[in-house]
Amino acid sequence: MSPPSRDDSPFLTGSRMGSMPLVEDSLPIRRLEISDHKKGFVELLSQLTVCPPLSESEFQARFSEIANLGDSHCICVVEDPTTERIIGTGSVFIEKKFIRGGSKVGHVEDVVVAKSARGLHLGQRIVKHLVDHAKAAGCYKVVLACAPELREFYEKCDFVEKNVQMTVYF
Amino acid sequence: MSPPSRDDSPFLTGSRMGSMPLVEDSLPIRRLEISDHKKGFVELLSQLTVCPPLSESEFQARFSEIANLGDSHCICVVEDPTTERIIGTGSVFIEKKFIRGGSKVGHVEDVVVAKSARGLHLGQRIVKHLVDHAKAAGCYKVVLACAPELREFYEKCDFVEKNVQMTVYF
Repeated sequence: MSPPSRDDSPFLTGSRMGSMPLVEDSLPIRRLEISDHKKGFVELLSQLTVCPPLSESEFQARFSEIANLGDSHCICVVEDPTTERIIGTGSVFIEKKFIRGGSKVGHVEDVVVAKSARGLHLGQRIVKHLVDHAKAAGCYKVVLACAPELREFYEKCDFVEKNVQMTVYF
Repeated sequence: MSPPSRDDSPFLTGSRMGSMPLVEDSLPIRRLEISDHKKGFVELLSQLTVCPPLSESEFQARFSEIANLGDSHCICVVEDPTTERIIGTGSVFIEKKFIRGGSKVGHVEDVVVAKSARGLHLGQRIVKHLVDHAKAAGCYKVVLACAPELREFYEKCDFVEKNVQMTVYF
């Protein structure tokens, strides 16, 4: 009797159906590169929020501004080696403070995994990578804001609920 | 009949009792300066959270790191002209993003008014100053995290509650 088809698995859906299954450990997390514009980085962000396309020059300009901050603003990505598309990303920037003896705080932002690659724990691995980066940078804590329905996900990543987020939109 | 003494007013307490009353409009909001170390900037932050003293060289080193970010990290202060002490502060840093056509978000942090100067609406003025800075810098929104009991204060500053803040402490 043959094993059940992997294509029916809930973690292989959408555009990956029929492709080689993604093996979690084979997907390294690396820093965003300028060539990731061609690999669908901005399209991936559009699965998170309002994110119209950026031209190559617009992307490069913003990339350079962020790259100039060095390790103070780390955007990481996961690339699907089969399709050469970016399937996961997250960022952390390091805020330098005067409190707590001149300490730092890591702010995690814009974590998203492609719909086609969910269920592989990529999100948890990306968040852990960002938290580890902030810890290595000397932060005393890492914070993020999320919708209440993501509370459980971030609790799995060792976060605890703390405070409320307030916003002004222009 | 003489008017009631200003010293009995709830917004003139602590170390200011007996001083000339602070007049709200006479207190300009300005950027943090390196000389503010001597004017009690770090001591003021200790009214907000854990904030041990910083030596002058420690303060200058952190000041320079933040100053190098230019308008991307604005720390503002209010100085009492009578005592030459810093009695209010707040900061905003501007995060550059790829979403929303390469937009930006302002993150407000470390807003505190000295106990001796509360009731003068300095906090609201400081927050408005930070929000205006972020708007001028091209942000599409400004965010902050606060304890639930400060919700009402930030609502007066035109913020609305949005999302929950999650934290990892090291």
